[in-house]
Amino acid sequence: MVRIQPELFRDALSGLPAGVTVITSVDSAGVFVGATVSAFMSLSLDPPLVLASVAASARTALAAQSSGAYAAHIVGAKHQDLAMRFASSNPDKFEGLRYHLSARGVPVLEDFDISLECSLYAEHPGGDHTILVGLVEAVNMVERGPPAVWYDRSFHNLKR
Amino acid sequence: MVRIQPELFRDALSGLPAGVTVITSVDSAGVFVGATVSAFMSLSLDPPLVLASVAASARTALAAQSSGAYAAHIVGAKHQDLAMRFASSNPDKFEGLRYHLSARGVPVLEDFDISLECSLYAEHPGGDHTILVGLVEAVNMVERGPPAVWYDRSFHNLKR
Repeated sequence: MVRIQPELFRDALSGLPAGVTVITSVDSAGVFVGATVSAFMSLSLDPPLVLASVAASARTALAAQSSGAYAAHIVGAKHQDLAMRFASSNPDKFEGLRYHLSARGVPVLEDFDISLECSLYAEHPGGDHTILVGLVEAVNMVERGPPAVWYDRSFHNLKR
Repeated sequence: MVRIQPELFRDALSGLPAGVTVITSVDSAGVFVGATVSAFMSLSLDPPLVLASVAASARTALAAQSSGAYAAHIVGAKHQDLAMRFASSNPDKFEGLRYHLSARGVPVLEDFDISLECSLYAEHPGGDHTILVGLVEAVNMVERGPPAVWYDRSFHNLKR
C-alpha cells in the first residue's frame, strides 16, 4: 500500500474546524501539567464520556495515565492567550492562575467558563497519539462567552 | 459516586464547537449506509489516523465494523442540506448523489470538497458510542469553500 503524504493529510484535516480545550493533570511527582488540545469530543451520554487525543509522548498524556484523571477546559474567544500559554513550552504554565483541585487531585482552572473533571475511563493507543477516554464526574459552568474555533491552523470566531 | 445529570453534560458540551462530517460505509448485504457525525478528529500523523465516534447501535457503525472501512466527508457551509439528509432517517440517503467506490468498496460522495477514504485501523467501545479509528488510505480534495461549524445545537459559519 502506498502511504499518503503527511502534507496531504495535514492539508485535508486543516479544513475541519474544531473546538479547543486545555487538558490538565498531575504527574506522579505531584507536578501540575497541561496542554492545549484541539482533538476533544463528546463521546457518550450514558455513561457520560468525553475523549481527548494527546501526543503519546506528552507529559500530559503520561500524567493522565499515572494519575487516572484529567480536567478539560473549553477555550472560548476570550481564552486564547491561555490556550497559547498551554500550547507553549513554558515551564510554569500555571503561574498566577486560579484553580481548585478535583476530587482526584487534578488542577481545575477557574478562568474558563466550562470545565469537566474526569476520571480516566479507558486509554487506547492511536498512532503517535494516545486516546484518553474520560468519565465526567463533575461539571463547572458559568455564563459562557463566544467560543473559539481552530480552523486552517489559526483561531477563528463564529458569526453571530 | 453521584452520576452527573445528562442535561448538565449536554449543556456543557454544547459549548464546544465542532466540525461536521458525513461518514459512509457499506453493510454486509452491500447496502450503502451513512450518518452525519460531529465527533470526528485528526488523531495521528504517523501513521495517518482519524477517529470517528458513531452511536454503537447505528447501521453505519455496524457496517464499518463488518466491511472494515469507511469514508469521511468534511461538511462545508454549502453542504448543510447533505448533512441534514444524512442525519435523517431517510431510507435512501444516497438517492441522486454522485459517488465513486473506494478501494475497499465504500461509497465516496463527490459533492464534498474534502473526503478521506479509510480502512478500519481499530475499534473501541465508548459507552453508547463506538470509536472507529481509521487509517487514511486516500484523500480527495478540491478547492474548498468555507466550513460549517456545529455549536450550541445548530450550524454556524466562521467570521472571515
